[in-house]
Amino acid sequence: MTLKSFIDVHPDSHFSLQNLPYGVFKPGKEQKARIGVAIGEYVLDLSAIAGAGLFNEPLLKDSECFFQNSLNMFLALGRPAWKEARATIQRLLSADEPTLRDNASLRERSLFSMDQVELLLPAAIGDYTDFFSSMHHAKNCGTIFRGPENPIPVNWFHLPIAYHGRASSILLSGTDIIRPRGQSFPVGNSPPYFGPSLKLDFELEMAAIVGPGNELGKPVDIDKAEDLIFGLVLMNDWSARDIQAWEYQPLGPFLGKSFGTTISPWIVTLEALEPFACDAPKQEPHPLPYLTEKKSKNYDIALEVQIKPTGHKEGSVVTKSNFKYLYWTLPQQLVHHTSNGCNLRPGDLLGTGTISGPDRESLGCLLELTWNGQKPLSLQNGAVRKFLEDEDEVIISGCCQGNGYKVGFGTCTGRILPALL
Amino acid sequence: MTLKSFIDVHPDSHFSLQNLPYGVFKPGKEQKARIGVAIGEYVLDLSAIAGAGLFNEPLLKDSECFFQNSLNMFLALGRPAWKEARATIQRLLSADEPTLRDNASLRERSLFSMDQVELLLPAAIGDYTDFFSSMHHAKNCGTIFRGPENPIPVNWFHLPIAYHGRASSILLSGTDIIRPRGQSFPVGNSPPYFGPSLKLDFELEMAAIVGPGNELGKPVDIDKAEDLIFGLVLMNDWSARDIQAWEYQPLGPFLGKSFGTTISPWIVTLEALEPFACDAPKQEPHPLPYLTEKKSKNYDIALEVQIKPTGHKEGSVVTKSNFKYLYWTLPQQLVHHTSNGCNLRPGDLLGTGTISGPDRESLGCLLELTWNGQKPLSLQNGAVRKFLEDEDEVIISGCCQGNGYKVGFGTCTGRILPALL
Repeated sequence: MTLKSFIDVHPDSHFSLQNLPYGVFKPGKEQKARIGVAIGEYVLDLSAIAGAGLFNEPLLKDSECFFQNSLNMFLALGRPAWKEARATIQRLLSADEPTLRDNASLRERSLFSMDQVELLLPAAIGDYTDFFSSMHHAKNCGTIFRGPENPIPVNWFHLPIAYHGRASSILLSGTDIIRPRGQSFPVGNSPPYFGPSLKLDFELEMAAIVGPGNELGKPVDIDKAEDLIFGLVLMNDWSARDIQAWEYQPLGPFLGKSFGTTISPWIVTLEALEPFACDAPKQEPHPLPYLTEKKSKNYDIALEVQIKPTGHKEGSVVTKSNFKYLYWTLPQQLVHHTSNGCNLRPGDLLGTGTISGPDRESLGCLLELTWNGQKPLSLQNGAVRKFLEDEDEVIISGCCQGNGYKVGFGTCTGRILPALL
Repeated sequence: MTLKSFIDVHPDSHFSLQNLPYGVFKPGKEQKARIGVAIGEYVLDLSAIAGAGLFNEPLLKDSECFFQNSLNMFLALGRPAWKEARATIQRLLSADEPTLRDNASLRERSLFSMDQVELLLPAAIGDYTDFFSSMHHAKNCGTIFRGPENPIPVNWFHLPIAYHGRASSILLSGTDIIRPRGQSFPVGNSPPYFGPSLKLDFELEMAAIVGPGNELGKPVDIDKAEDLIFGLVLMNDWSARDIQAWEYQPLGPFLGKSFGTTISPWIVTLEALEPFACDAPKQEPHPLPYLTEKKSKNYDIALEVQIKPTGHKEGSVVTKSNFKYLYWTLPQQLVHHTSNGCNLRPGDLLGTGTISGPDRESLGCLLELTWNGQKPLSLQNGAVRKFLEDEDEVIISGCCQGNGYKVGFGTCTGRILPALL
């Protein structure tokens, strides 16, 4: 059976009836934020659907979760409620179902043209963690910073390495990024440089949105971890490589990252991604028992990054990567995170780390693509980049290709503004 | 003039009329959380005072800030409002002022015996950052982990190094800590160890609570930084040294810390600490201009850590340190944090890092005190410790000694429970 909606969805649209990603939006500037799902060129307002009494199955019928201004309450409900919501929404939007299709007043109240609404961050993010789960990225960074002998740290193959990121500066796609100032390595006997970063980079990542979370002191079992993950977004973990290189010993990245992290507005659920599941890479050495999955899976999500300099009509594709290149899986990341008893809360964000593939064309950041600025990258129209320049826009997109439909993430974009004086 | 309250405050009490630290409490289990200040053995309920119309000065008279269940709204108001509140509360509690003293009904409604109330976290903490600002601690850790040649990283004297911590596992004093499980270094060709941490440690720290914060992209000027800091709490940054040592390269501390961080319930304001200001250590090399203060100051806060094994009637003092040993000052920490444009929000927590002094008796954690377990520490009653054992209670206290009164922080305590099976 091919699922078809009464709403016209172009086969190239990321937001098919098979997708139904969740977000938060305002229909107009003065109106309250509310929860919606994307369908083709429209947003379906779930507060209107809930207000009409159409979430009438047991788990959601008395819930206030769709009358909130963030997804956190819905995230806390867990997978059975998410499945119920998906089934209801998919049915209401299908071509054969008259309830919404034939109710002009309800359509008027609940469907908004996507280009008319203002999108907001989909969840209140309490804590943001960033992993380091692509082996190719770890190898390339290690080679650049520490040399070609043993570029991957010895612990890397035993645990999904991660650091805590900054939650306050997580931004919605489309927000401009001010080039950060900061310290970097002194030259000779001079004091350290302080000024605008000279090595501003993007990082192609995805990030999981945590569902119900876990209590402090209660590690999550590997077999139950997938049920704590609601879905995925695209993420650009903007990085100032010069600030990072000078500050990161011994306590890790700090100001080289915390000036801004951009995520895409629509959370694509694991249910929608399930048809695109694929085997994860073989792990050698075998992970410790607490990280051993019955079946280790990734998702086949094609990822692309474009850089669009000011004045260019189109962006230049600089990398084509894929979520499937990740070595450590989402459940392994989550289980490791809680293995010491650390509590995750609904809405927490777990970044994958830069997703680099095995080839020159699939590297996930300029640090790797230009080998720390040594091999400048040619864009269209004669532009050349070592790192990002002011007014450059970076556009990340991600999509799964189904049979006659797509399950996509839209884009995650940001433009560089000059540093403050 | 000696300030005196109509409430009997013992000269050894940490909570004199000169102190007036802020916290959040419930008078009874079923009652709503509210904001209070500590005075002697009592808590003054500011919602009752505000409800009686006694905050009648311009900045606070129409404010809802004392009808909240956290201090965040009051923190956002900034120093002029904090000064106004302090003046009002100090006046209302003074011996000469009849308004509260002679109003039995209002006293009944607003004053609660401290041992009858339940204390809560004083603020909703969005982000928690931990600095590394004691030179003695940096030197000792560097020597233990990397050897005696150049133990302090070259960047350390140029910038207040820090990392992002985990906000979800910040706990109130008195909360038990479950010994974390985790990975640590493999021995020989074995896989890494996985099990209960064998090197569980405390870290003696203090932490600043951020007031109004700053907008993303707007670094804070060094001359204005102090006005963004509301006050200080005691902090125990529990650390699993074995987990930390194995995981921390290259991205810094993660699971070795995120199982719990304990803070004391009462925020002592910078106004109350001002009489105890003292010169900060001379900084050589001279810091870069953005970190250069007109006058660089610390506070003379005597700090003490006791370990109390199960069955012991009293704790054994294991260290006596002082806030004044910090090399990087609070304004420098805050300014550096925002120098890349990173936004701080009201209630954010900025830990100082372990506060070790120059002497053997002033070291701020067991890693240093026992030199990574090589020199066990003798407690009372014949107990000996390399690291913390199950059922040990760690009690941090901090206090400034005035002329006939104290401005103190009370205690920050936590007891170790055995790891989960």
